[in-house]
Amino acid sequence: MAKKVVLGFSGGLDTSFCVKYLTDEKGYEVHSIIVNTGGFSEEELKKIEEHAKKLGVKSHKAVNAVKNYYDSIIRYLVFGNVLKNNTYPLSVSAERLSQALHIAKYAREINADAIAHGSTGAGNDQVRFDMIFQIMAPEIEIITPIRDMNLSRASEVEYLQSKGVDMNFEKSVYSINKGLWGTSVGGKETLSSNGYLPDEAWPTPVTQTGTEPVKLSFEQGELKKVNDETFDHPTQAIQHLQQIAGPYGIGRDIHVGDTIIGIKGRVGFEAAAPILIIKAHHALEKHVLSKWQLQWKDQLSSFYGTWLHEGQILDPVMRDIEAYLESSQRNVTGDVFLQLHPYRYQVLGIESPYDLMNNAFGSYGETNRSFTGDDVKGFTKIFGNQTSIYHQIKEHANKG
Amino acid sequence: MAKKVVLGFSGGLDTSFCVKYLTDEKGYEVHSIIVNTGGFSEEELKKIEEHAKKLGVKSHKAVNAVKNYYDSIIRYLVFGNVLKNNTYPLSVSAERLSQALHIAKYAREINADAIAHGSTGAGNDQVRFDMIFQIMAPEIEIITPIRDMNLSRASEVEYLQSKGVDMNFEKSVYSINKGLWGTSVGGKETLSSNGYLPDEAWPTPVTQTGTEPVKLSFEQGELKKVNDETFDHPTQAIQHLQQIAGPYGIGRDIHVGDTIIGIKGRVGFEAAAPILIIKAHHALEKHVLSKWQLQWKDQLSSFYGTWLHEGQILDPVMRDIEAYLESSQRNVTGDVFLQLHPYRYQVLGIESPYDLMNNAFGSYGETNRSFTGDDVKGFTKIFGNQTSIYHQIKEHANKG
Amino acid sequence: MAKKVVLGFSGGLDTSFCVKYLTDEKGYEVHSIIVNTGGFSEEELKKIEEHAKKLGVKSHKAVNAVKNYYDSIIRYLVFGNVLKNNTYPLSVSAERLSQALHIAKYAREINADAIAHGSTGAGNDQVRFDMIFQIMAPEIEIITPIRDMNLSRASEVEYLQSKGVDMNFEKSVYSINKGLWGTSVGGKETLSSNGYLPDEAWPTPVTQTGTEPVKLSFEQGELKKVNDETFDHPTQAIQHLQQIAGPYGIGRDIHVGDTIIGIKGRVGFEAAAPILIIKAHHALEKHVLSKWQLQWKDQLSSFYGTWLHEGQILDPVMRDIEAYLESSQRNVTGDVFLQLHPYRYQVLGIESPYDLMNNAFGSYGETNRSFTGDDVKGFTKIFGNQTSIYHQIKEHANKG
Amino acid sequence: MAKKVVLGFSGGLDTSFCVKYLTDEKGYEVHSIIVNTGGFSEEELKKIEEHAKKLGVKSHKAVNAVKNYYDSIIRYLVFGNVLKNNTYPLSVSAERLSQALHIAKYAREINADAIAHGSTGAGNDQVRFDMIFQIMAPEIEIITPIRDMNLSRASEVEYLQSKGVDMNFEKSVYSINKGLWGTSVGGKETLSSNGYLPDEAWPTPVTQTGTEPVKLSFEQGELKKVNDETFDHPTQAIQHLQQIAGPYGIGRDIHVGDTIIGIKGRVGFEAAAPILIIKAHHALEKHVLSKWQLQWKDQLSSFYGTWLHEGQILDPVMRDIEAYLESSQRNVTGDVFLQLHPYRYQVLGIESPYDLMNNAFGSYGETNRSFTGDDVKGFTKIFGNQTSIYHQIKEHANKG
Repeated sequence: MAKKVVLGFSGGLDTSFCVKYLTDEKGYEVHSIIVNTGGFSEEELKKIEEHAKKLGVKSHKAVNAVKNYYDSIIRYLVFGNVLKNNTYPLSVSAERLSQALHIAKYAREINADAIAHGSTGAGNDQVRFDMIFQIMAPEIEIITPIRDMNLSRASEVEYLQSKGVDMNFEKSVYSINKGLWGTSVGGKETLSSNGYLPDEAWPTPVTQTGTEPVKLSFEQGELKKVNDETFDHPTQAIQHLQQIAGPYGIGRDIHVGDTIIGIKGRVGFEAAAPILIIKAHHALEKHVLSKWQLQWKDQLSSFYGTWLHEGQILDPVMRDIEAYLESSQRNVTGDVFLQLHPYRYQVLGIESPYDLMNNAFGSYGETNRSFTGDDVKGFTKIFGNQTSIYHQIKEHANKG
Repeated sequence: MAKKVVLGFSGGLDTSFCVKYLTDEKGYEVHSIIVNTGGFSEEELKKIEEHAKKLGVKSHKAVNAVKNYYDSIIRYLVFGNVLKNNTYPLSVSAERLSQALHIAKYAREINADAIAHGSTGAGNDQVRFDMIFQIMAPEIEIITPIRDMNLSRASEVEYLQSKGVDMNFEKSVYSINKGLWGTSVGGKETLSSNGYLPDEAWPTPVTQTGTEPVKLSFEQGELKKVNDETFDHPTQAIQHLQQIAGPYGIGRDIHVGDTIIGIKGRVGFEAAAPILIIKAHHALEKHVLSKWQLQWKDQLSSFYGTWLHEGQILDPVMRDIEAYLESSQRNVTGDVFLQLHPYRYQVLGIESPYDLMNNAFGSYGETNRSFTGDDVKGFTKIFGNQTSIYHQIKEHANKG
Repeated sequence: MAKKVVLGFSGGLDTSFCVKYLTDEKGYEVHSIIVNTGGFSEEELKKIEEHAKKLGVKSHKAVNAVKNYYDSIIRYLVFGNVLKNNTYPLSVSAERLSQALHIAKYAREINADAIAHGSTGAGNDQVRFDMIFQIMAPEIEIITPIRDMNLSRASEVEYLQSKGVDMNFEKSVYSINKGLWGTSVGGKETLSSNGYLPDEAWPTPVTQTGTEPVKLSFEQGELKKVNDETFDHPTQAIQHLQQIAGPYGIGRDIHVGDTIIGIKGRVGFEAAAPILIIKAHHALEKHVLSKWQLQWKDQLSSFYGTWLHEGQILDPVMRDIEAYLESSQRNVTGDVFLQLHPYRYQVLGIESPYDLMNNAFGSYGETNRSFTGDDVKGFTKIFGNQTSIYHQIKEHANKG
Repeated sequence: MAKKVVLGFSGGLDTSFCVKYLTDEKGYEVHSIIVNTGGFSEEELKKIEEHAKKLGVKSHKAVNAVKNYYDSIIRYLVFGNVLKNNTYPLSVSAERLSQALHIAKYAREINADAIAHGSTGAGNDQVRFDMIFQIMAPEIEIITPIRDMNLSRASEVEYLQSKGVDMNFEKSVYSINKGLWGTSVGGKETLSSNGYLPDEAWPTPVTQTGTEPVKLSFEQGELKKVNDETFDHPTQAIQHLQQIAGPYGIGRDIHVGDTIIGIKGRVGFEAAAPILIIKAHHALEKHVLSKWQLQWKDQLSSFYGTWLHEGQILDPVMRDIEAYLESSQRNVTGDVFLQLHPYRYQVLGIESPYDLMNNAFGSYGETNRSFTGDDVKGFTKIFGNQTSIYHQIKEHANKG
């Protein structure tokens, strides 16, 4: 009886090669799976399924992971205002983890002997996939033909053509990865340290030329309404906001950062909804959280984002940080007002029942009800007491 | 013999009141001092001196603190990419500390009996001035007439008019504070949590409508050239960049944050040069610093900015953090390329001999010279080892 | 009708003075309250009640806060292994907050017009009491006769004697404060920076001269059994362990640290059970938590302890950190074995179903099942990749 | 011409095997090197050299690295009070790095073709050696016969005996590693999670039964005098203190921690001088550093120790942290008084011209000169202001 392999399948060249190679050369029964984290339409999924079947998979499965992706990952990236290196919403990294978790689960469900993925030996994804599979299903072998044989694009094409496979073998000028939390764009310009992506590289054309106000309503840190429209699930609110803001060209940038494997990488991305949500959420938090809540959230979230980026979502520390973040959101409820412009936006302000500014208990720089100038004098004496002692001691010691 | 008081003097209503009040009601010999941290022209300084003398000060001194302000404070704010709450370059907070330090030094030099400042009892500045004076000159009394008498604007005007003082008593619609590191703008809109400043509130009109490239060259973290033009001192490079970028309306935003006295405050600011410098510097650092250098710089700088904002520049911990920041800059040398647009800018890329990306030693996602796919496989096994053990133990324990 | 004041009452000189002074000089109806956080026996409480009544209080209330004190504070100090400055279990600081919270609650319950406490103007307790009262009951006035009148011991005695009060007016050589989480000891030696407390200063005499094994059993971070004996509540386990370990003189030390008011202070303490529990709990955690769980717990707990010490228990950030700590304890279950000796102890080891060491999945330095030497070679290449690139770039740049 | 290999040589079974194997089977010219970081006497070094020569090395070199080891590593471990997991002074980890750095330097000096080390595939040392060699000498091949062939002790003995090698082939019951900064002890008991090392396992017998005072004098963080005796270099002071305190059995403990390779390990150690120096140094710092200096030192040092333990001494972030630590020590000057007892010690106190406690400027709990009770009242109002507003807003919002 043929051994079963579950193959993460996108329909591209690498995973198409894997189907044929694992079936014909290695004698596996290939069960392809595609995990949709928001980047595929129904039609695209159908085409991918047809392509898989034509390649000869034993079975093909499409998982709609969008809500689960949000509930288990994106939610915390919003709570933490996570932008890696102060820029990148982790569009691809987060998605890969969701995909890996679903693939490992499926492999165990169908008692697979092996899990295959199409990663090369040069990027982050191999680490994310390998690690999640090893942890979730340590008894299942991992197979990575492209990496192991160090295959070139040309030799993959040649092999598939020799097998009579008919598909689009043309290489796109820019490599695009689309999902709920943003779209990455890689190409010539991002391979060097200097150079910005040209207009034609960005998947969403900028068609809006005016300006537009947007109101985002959060409940306990989650986006619930856009312009007063309610949704069944925050994923729908995100997608709705993306429809509005994408054509403004908002949320385009280039991320430079440390890969898991120690080298620096650069990648373009467009992420209108993620950037607006995170910036609006952060603006709201600045009004409703205490100074130290903000401070510790920043530190924990920065680590959370980096550790997630590096594939470590299953480290139990991530559950602890999520507990922190969850707790921090209990008052993060209110409306945030933004103005969209071509290529930019402006946060205009917030309204919240939990706003710690502008309330009956004292406003900055204005007549205060809760303290006097004398209180501040006393405060200042004590607040500066240690440093004052320090300098007097030092002056005295240096004289002595 | 009359007692000497040194008075921090800006020429505004509050400090004009202080001159008269301290002279006529308290019998002090008033020595006014103005510390220019980049906000005053020669002409303005001359007018302020004339005004001080007309009010009856015994002496007036203008200190040009611009270079010293940069060398002792701004330099570290650049090294640390300090933007409070991820937004505000600390334009006013940093400036107040520089001013306070110069005033305290002067008071000791002329053997003053007292130092006076015009702060009210409602803001941050009173804390900054009081604290620095207490620490630097604990033997000198601090006098704050406006705070102590809780004076209203109207009563100050009335008093000065009764003394025959002739000056502009009109209240500006927006309160503006200008300096080397940015200009703050406060007014009706910033007093509430919702609302953006109107065009007329911003001191620098937006007159540029096209786009323009800018090249910033850093040496060991300091801005040395703008568009290949060299300067005697970084302050001149900053001022030159401000001339170029200001008319684009770059670096305008509203900061929301925690004041020293525990309430939340909101303030507008425009800071084209500071924002461009910090973002360009940060972009360069992402290429030349190691992952953990970036990580720790972030944590230390965030604290440094907050602690500076709260007036604690004399805490010895600040010297320790400065030593860290100084050390971190040894390779932060290179050019950063930006594109200016009305109201926004884009970092295009960097060039540096210390660039850790795109070099002879391996580029992300491309053919790699320094490691193989097998190395990454081994890496991943060890990198995920603890979490793998954790999940196996847990599964086993939960069964047991 | 007389105004009601709730007075935190310990029966000592300061609070006895307050009863008389508030009644006779200020015309208040005094409602005394004592909050027992584990330091008082039934008999002592009865004596204190009699003394209060003799002094003329309108009512007296004793609150048994021991369990609540554990559930709301001590529990998290154990979870966080909190030892301030790596030494002090916060015996007194934690207790004061529990007391303040109960007093504020009581004042609101009986609609008091004021709350009084006997703190002087020189220590931490005034800050803790004032702050909790202001936050919990902002509408109620705070009265502090000893601080406000800057009273000396002698003048208090004189006043009470003039009122015919009969009590022990002798000053103890050492000032002792006893509670569930340890006993503080202050005196001549702790007032200077050099000098250890003599034998007679410590409340618990060292009577044990041999050695003794102790087994502590934790469930999700909480002490449930001592030497296999179970208890209704962890407070009983703590008290039982204190009975065993106290006579060994374990947990005696001197704490040096920063007070809330900016000066350094020194205080002796004995805390056999707290020290043993924290060290045993920490030993268990080293075996069952992941590297980063330990790392972040340390940072958060260090802040938690300091912020609690400074009276900030009501800052919402404390709830967030507690959520983190709670989450981190889900596997902190197992037995810890200790050996007690006079003045010291030794952790011998642990046993836990969640032990990440010594299990079927690989033991350090021994034959390993989950990885090979080749895996480690690959790991090391990637693990050192960035630093390797850094040094090659630097060598190259410095040559160039 | 034979290729040159530099071999890190200790004279034990593994490295003896390497000499023979590399010479006879691989045809290398073996240049052995031993780096003494304080664990070897002159006599032992002579014996090791003789043994190397008998085994047939082409050359043998002994490097006295003790002072350099202190200057480049130990110094910062003292500045940082580094005890991994609050217990272990990194005795072995620190030493391995010093050794690796010297070996790599030597290999480059003599133009070696390869560097060999005797590490197995199961521990931390392989990572430390490989990584340092790769970074310092990327052009030189690394050879690890024991790891690569996964050799057992028995097969190594058999091979050496077959080659006529005459040496002590007996396995010690406890594996001991001695150096300037402590001695590690591994054996049966440390291989499991529960069990303490027996008396005979510890290299230094406890012969002192009384007590003894010790005075340690620090200058800018470094130990300069012991009992008023001065030394040419801090390494001599450390060794002298070790002579005094070792026979008390001070500084014995078992460390449990995370290895670089993801599993937990346990190891015994005795380190009288390191523990006393770190605890004394920390006690002094508590008196002379500001609150935030202590706080940030703790965080940075904890990372520094972990990162060093993991072999990452060449990451440039380590230089930045060293700059911080160096800066922090400018006032860490003074005497620390300790009392030694069998198996324990007590810090009695400190004396320092920079002591921030007990000085002319205010002592805790005593009559204060620099502030009044009213100042503290004002301080407390402001200090609790935000939390007070938070609770009032919350109460109001929850009602609304």
